[in-house]
Amino acid sequence: MESLPQKLLENAVQELNRLPGIGRKTALRLALFLLAQEEGMVERFGNTLIDFRKNTRYCRLCHNISDTEVCPVCASPKRDRGTICVVSDVRDVMALENTGIYNGLYHVLGGLINPLSGISPSQLHIESLSERIKESAPEEIILALPATPEGDTTAFYISRKIKPFGVKITAISKGIAIGDDLEYTDEVTLGRSLANRTEYH
Amino acid sequence: MESLPQKLLENAVQELNRLPGIGRKTALRLALFLLAQEEGMVERFGNTLIDFRKNTRYCRLCHNISDTEVCPVCASPKRDRGTICVVSDVRDVMALENTGIYNGLYHVLGGLINPLSGISPSQLHIESLSERIKESAPEEIILALPATPEGDTTAFYISRKIKPFGVKITAISKGIAIGDDLEYTDEVTLGRSLANRTEYH
Repeated sequence: MESLPQKLLENAVQELNRLPGIGRKTALRLALFLLAQEEGMVERFGNTLIDFRKNTRYCRLCHNISDTEVCPVCASPKRDRGTICVVSDVRDVMALENTGIYNGLYHVLGGLINPLSGISPSQLHIESLSERIKESAPEEIILALPATPEGDTTAFYISRKIKPFGVKITAISKGIAIGDDLEYTDEVTLGRSLANRTEYH
Repeated sequence: MESLPQKLLENAVQELNRLPGIGRKTALRLALFLLAQEEGMVERFGNTLIDFRKNTRYCRLCHNISDTEVCPVCASPKRDRGTICVVSDVRDVMALENTGIYNGLYHVLGGLINPLSGISPSQLHIESLSERIKESAPEEIILALPATPEGDTTAFYISRKIKPFGVKITAISKGIAIGDDLEYTDEVTLGRSLANRTEYH
């Protein structure tokens, strides 16, 4: 789709087009939707997003998004302070909280090591993980990182970094998903699932 | 997905969730994307959309979105003033312009008659179409409305409304799409396509 002759419309389409997964055609549809709304609605829409970006804070301890200096998880006396689960981003915390079976703390890295995208360890919250371990001496660090090359690289880097503290380091298991048929599982997953087999009870 | 404990994030997700086709999960993904951008980028994003809604103007004659009081199509001396093509919305103008074969003027209704959604003829630019016809006495009005019940209702309403002016009224043809196989065309379309057959040259 080429650029539109109407300047304000073209600007709006270009901005919406910046969003991931929103192509120019969808951006145009969204722009025309906004145009059909009350002016007050669009003002609230835009200002809410600006306000969100400007004023969102992160937990001083685990770097999760938080309305308070220390997030509710880190502040809760009910959570097990002996376990810290290391994740790539905020959505991973939500996914793990949704399982309802984890009762420890988190540490949000803010991404994964990725030399191709220019993301180096120093840009992630790895140094502050070391400091947390030094200060609070947890028993176990769970690496809950994605099963991708970037996830593996990051897990490897962190494990080397924190091994000197003598903390137990574990990783979430990888294998076939619950409910999955073997015939539809890719070979690599199935192979690792076989190699990492556990005793059957 | 239930509501998020972080208030600013929840607000942002709720606003993005208002967009058509954007569910709460996608809204969360978009919000976290915006959070990862420069503050200036998000400010420009929000303000561009507000500015677009506040300052967009419409052509005084055809009601298409326009940066000027009269849009480039209506103002162009190269366009055939004897033909006015009636469409539902702005995207239809773009689609027809993209065909490159239409050289007349447009008239954008701003929607279709839809009693269920409470859209009555008075909310559409139908009165101004009558006035345009009265003033400029075009030779032909082309109804280029969607092949839906709402499109048919609107076409019927308009044709009754403008028949008294003695202008020639035509409608775009409906039938199987170019490149389509008959076996994959729905029966209604195929039936109408057969009934409206034209002489073969």
